[in-house]
Amino acid sequence: MIIVPESAIANLMTADDAFKAVEAVFAAMSRGDAYNFPVIREAIGHADALYGFKSGFDRAGLNLGLKSGGYWPGNADKGLTNHQSTVFLFDADTGKCRAVVGGNLLTALRTAAAAAVSTAHLAREDARVLGIVGAGHQSTFQLRQVAATRDFERVVAWNRSPEKLDRLAKVAAELGLPFEAVSLETLGAQADVIVTIVSAQAPTLLDAHVRPGTHIACMGTDTKGKQEVEAAILARATVFTDEVAQSVTIGEAQHAVGQGLIAKGDVNELGAVINGTHPGRRSGDEITVFDGTGVGLQDLAVAASVVERAIAEGVAVEVDF
Amino acid sequence: MIIVPESAIANLMTADDAFKAVEAVFAAMSRGDAYNFPVIREAIGHADALYGFKSGFDRAGLNLGLKSGGYWPGNADKGLTNHQSTVFLFDADTGKCRAVVGGNLLTALRTAAAAAVSTAHLAREDARVLGIVGAGHQSTFQLRQVAATRDFERVVAWNRSPEKLDRLAKVAAELGLPFEAVSLETLGAQADVIVTIVSAQAPTLLDAHVRPGTHIACMGTDTKGKQEVEAAILARATVFTDEVAQSVTIGEAQHAVGQGLIAKGDVNELGAVINGTHPGRRSGDEITVFDGTGVGLQDLAVAASVVERAIAEGVAVEVDF
Repeated sequence: MIIVPESAIANLMTADDAFKAVEAVFAAMSRGDAYNFPVIREAIGHADALYGFKSGFDRAGLNLGLKSGGYWPGNADKGLTNHQSTVFLFDADTGKCRAVVGGNLLTALRTAAAAAVSTAHLAREDARVLGIVGAGHQSTFQLRQVAATRDFERVVAWNRSPEKLDRLAKVAAELGLPFEAVSLETLGAQADVIVTIVSAQAPTLLDAHVRPGTHIACMGTDTKGKQEVEAAILARATVFTDEVAQSVTIGEAQHAVGQGLIAKGDVNELGAVINGTHPGRRSGDEITVFDGTGVGLQDLAVAASVVERAIAEGVAVEVDF
Repeated sequence: MIIVPESAIANLMTADDAFKAVEAVFAAMSRGDAYNFPVIREAIGHADALYGFKSGFDRAGLNLGLKSGGYWPGNADKGLTNHQSTVFLFDADTGKCRAVVGGNLLTALRTAAAAAVSTAHLAREDARVLGIVGAGHQSTFQLRQVAATRDFERVVAWNRSPEKLDRLAKVAAELGLPFEAVSLETLGAQADVIVTIVSAQAPTLLDAHVRPGTHIACMGTDTKGKQEVEAAILARATVFTDEVAQSVTIGEAQHAVGQGLIAKGDVNELGAVINGTHPGRRSGDEITVFDGTGVGLQDLAVAASVVERAIAEGVAVEVDF
């Protein structure tokens, strides 16, 4: 059994590996070669924790397993990350546990990779301004990975607490991109690609903010009741997602579908675009939305990629099991 | 993170530890201190494998986690066990993965421990003859653990293929108990306690075989359609189980309930007997049935017990994670 501790991930996982792993598994899902099992999510009644699993099997990549973990709100006081995740991979040919991989950094990387894959496949080729809505922990990962998908010339960003935008400014500087804190109106008027990475129960980005031709990656909604963008945006956009069933129930599309603005059949798999069975963006004026809900197969894909790299670099810790 | 490989379990887990762990968690379940999460079970469409998870949380014992694994029918040809299981324990206070424990032997031990706990709490004190129906891999574990619960004087056993009874005869000899291969009629007429450990789709032990006063532990039915004993037996018995919801859907009671012979409300928690909130056996003539369906909390309980013993004996393998 191979162990890849949390501390080893940063040196092993590259944005490029994460991109390739997530792109491949989205494609496999759309071909029917990979599927996610039902999600388990439980408020365990101890330490205010939410605990559960996301799991699945990718027949193409032979990735079988689960990400287990959850949210422990008291962890920060103990010097630990509130979100705790571990990925377990199994040998699809024998059922033996093949690897245990720290899942905290991987979760941020696979989420950002999904936004990046959506941008690579759906944004206008001439996109030059990248907008980020939200400045929480995950926002810097989003900026870093999405910035690599087009020849962006500058970054505009908005956050409810503007002082937190510093962390995004710092990453933009590292990437050599001018950075500006702006209003949502300005952000919508200037950005060609917008990533929303907000945890909220009401829309932040409104329909009036968004101009034709924009690609929006909504990455913050993964629960019933959460919302990042006004449902009317989805009504005038072409909507894509990682998994349709999640998109219309716990993703951003839950609101547009619930209000009857779009139907389940209007939500398309990003994997179909990757596979070439959906044309993707059809014109420069089209608004495209990617509803990134987060699936277990993404976690398995990046974890398997890390294990492969750990083996290739000779740093995999093998434990007799 | 602590690793307890499969090969270390045999030297760490005692029947007594398994008994105590399973008894405690059944009691916690009945008090509402412990509960099982929904079971995931998937035919993955590769290697004819069935894969899934049983998981739960015991607030009393602070055991949180899952058993993952399944059935790989081609494993035997590779020199591996067809049933492959791994137990993952998490720190209930932080969500960090605390231990990875080999689950193959533990599964057999926790199943046999459940039958033993039921016998300890429900069989007549003067039970002297132990009957075993079935001689598969798990039957020897059943014999070993159930034999320890009363002053048994001999063992009678039946199996569809009588030549397989040798393995039970050998264990009986080790335990110093006379052993006899008998017909089902003789087994029912002589045994005070009967363990059925059969994987079948039709009843093996019939109502006419069973005399008053018998305790029957049905340990082989954990899926819709499986059946070990005639439903009429449950109709004239007092029925107990590990988890009522499983008992009436995938356990032995599915048939008696489905045929309208008993209602869901007639199925009692064994934990209630352990806690003293159900009187258990009321007379020497009563037939008691334990429907052991197998719950994730049992797996967590025995795995936690193994981890504790591994630490106490200084043989726990600690991995930086």
